[in-house]
Amino acid sequence: MDKILMGHGSGGSMMHELIANHFAPAFGMEGMFSDAAVLDAKAEGRLAMCTDSYVVSPIFFPGGNIGELAVNGTVNDLSMVGARPLYLTAGFIIEEGLPFDDLVRIVSSMAEAAKAASVKIVAGDTKVVERGKGDGIFINTAGVGIIPEEVELSASRVSPGDRIIISGSIGNHGMAVMAERNGLSFDPPVLSDTAPLSTLVRDMLKRPEGVCLMRDPTRGGLATTLNEFARETNLCMSIKEELIPLVPGVRGACDLLGLDPLYVANEGILVALVRPDVAEYLLEAIGKHPSGEMAAIIGSVEAEPAGAAILKTGIGGSRILQMLQGEQLPRIC
Amino acid sequence: MDKILMGHGSGGSMMHELIANHFAPAFGMEGMFSDAAVLDAKAEGRLAMCTDSYVVSPIFFPGGNIGELAVNGTVNDLSMVGARPLYLTAGFIIEEGLPFDDLVRIVSSMAEAAKAASVKIVAGDTKVVERGKGDGIFINTAGVGIIPEEVELSASRVSPGDRIIISGSIGNHGMAVMAERNGLSFDPPVLSDTAPLSTLVRDMLKRPEGVCLMRDPTRGGLATTLNEFARETNLCMSIKEELIPLVPGVRGACDLLGLDPLYVANEGILVALVRPDVAEYLLEAIGKHPSGEMAAIIGSVEAEPAGAAILKTGIGGSRILQMLQGEQLPRIC
Repeated sequence: MDKILMGHGSGGSMMHELIANHFAPAFGMEGMFSDAAVLDAKAEGRLAMCTDSYVVSPIFFPGGNIGELAVNGTVNDLSMVGARPLYLTAGFIIEEGLPFDDLVRIVSSMAEAAKAASVKIVAGDTKVVERGKGDGIFINTAGVGIIPEEVELSASRVSPGDRIIISGSIGNHGMAVMAERNGLSFDPPVLSDTAPLSTLVRDMLKRPEGVCLMRDPTRGGLATTLNEFARETNLCMSIKEELIPLVPGVRGACDLLGLDPLYVANEGILVALVRPDVAEYLLEAIGKHPSGEMAAIIGSVEAEPAGAAILKTGIGGSRILQMLQGEQLPRIC
Repeated sequence: MDKILMGHGSGGSMMHELIANHFAPAFGMEGMFSDAAVLDAKAEGRLAMCTDSYVVSPIFFPGGNIGELAVNGTVNDLSMVGARPLYLTAGFIIEEGLPFDDLVRIVSSMAEAAKAASVKIVAGDTKVVERGKGDGIFINTAGVGIIPEEVELSASRVSPGDRIIISGSIGNHGMAVMAERNGLSFDPPVLSDTAPLSTLVRDMLKRPEGVCLMRDPTRGGLATTLNEFARETNLCMSIKEELIPLVPGVRGACDLLGLDPLYVANEGILVALVRPDVAEYLLEAIGKHPSGEMAAIIGSVEAEPAGAAILKTGIGGSRILQMLQGEQLPRIC
């Protein structure tokens, strides 16, 4: 049997074998991997809960695949609300005919990513749809985490003068997927930045009073995240173009494809609004992480124009950054 | 705008408008409905967590639609481990071109179902895939609930002599979907049994010592659930054919389509293994619920043959019920 068949999503014996032979061992369950799990931890602190469905195309791309993306993305969603990620569920929607080996590679990547992020995949579900009614594999992950008592991330805590920190260079994930999709290769290759941000956030939150709001700029890119911040705080997010970390490969790929890196998706960086007096401390803390080497303070929060994101260019000009309109890069995550 | 476009899944302004105008008001969020939520409840008791993806085709069927199915199904998964369902997430994978009105109807059904089951949909995610890469809409729901201290559902608590209770008639959901898919209609119509089991379970668990194990026989039907029980307990699940509740319409539809109702999916009933001394009490408690009117004790747990499910027929014969092999009814939930 080298391909996924409709029977693998039947609820019957083929599905039970798939789970017993592949999912359960990969995710460290002994024999069982059902759609509901009883967790041994009690909640101390507030619960956080999140969900994300992954439909990235192609499912394998430079620097990652849909499986690790699905784990890291949900770990990061929890991290962005200040939670310590604990448990994930995984829901698979597989197109009939997916090579069995692809599924095994993806599940194995998920298991590795979960281990790296210290989360446990505790429950799962498998559906199979007919050929032509899906596209290889879609994965939903939902996550639960605990927010420590002292952590309070909220738009209401942001005030003018706060600094805007970014933890790494922008556009890597989106351009890696676009390159693969268009048959382009770069030297050195542009790799997805997919990575868990949980340990980086844990270290930042050693100074919880200094961190007001965080977000990972995924779909819609940095420009859309800054717009969300501006709307939620009713303040202005002002950044300087020359301070934004951007690797030459991504810049080149964006130029080639006519894309603005400010709108390209990222999967392993965060943007944080932080108190000015701890900004340098946080920058240093982020810089100690493998995915934080290019971290930078790229601007600050201002009072006016309220609700807007502004890009200041090198020659002294400035422009308003709109939220992403329409669809720039479909199915990037 | 009467159809879903790729831009509705962009992460940008079109998606924000969809969320602000439709999802957030339906789910009772003021303006925000993001992919991560901070929950105000602390856990008292053990946490339960579950996930299920819904790919039912067609998305509207007699007695329900994919939206309420997605809420009820996950409420029921939590209920089956003894948890009180509290929070749900919703992940949408929409095919470009889905009529906007269909999405609105589905979301509205989800909101109603959540209200009826007293759960809150706290976070969501929306992806759009190109026409021909999906099939209308797929929905993942993940859920979190709390298991009261006194509840302990476990295969290890089951022993020979325990009774097998079913809360309602079998096969209604599967045959309603199959009828719709095949353009068949019945008089009276066969309706899906989609319903939340949470209040029914709450009432059963007023006698927690009497309830050993529960499951909702969805994909794979009653026969597959009994096989799961038999394997997990290493005991025999023995049921009598004449005691199984089955409405004439479902029997007729199964005969017409050549299907065995024991393998047809259900979405609003449960099977429970219960202590013999409380079986009658529980039967009465279940019978007081709208979805429990046809509840019945259909058999009992026996020591031998270990690991098997046995159907005793009216004429004194018996046959081993296998787990569902291959795929009988694809995309039933």
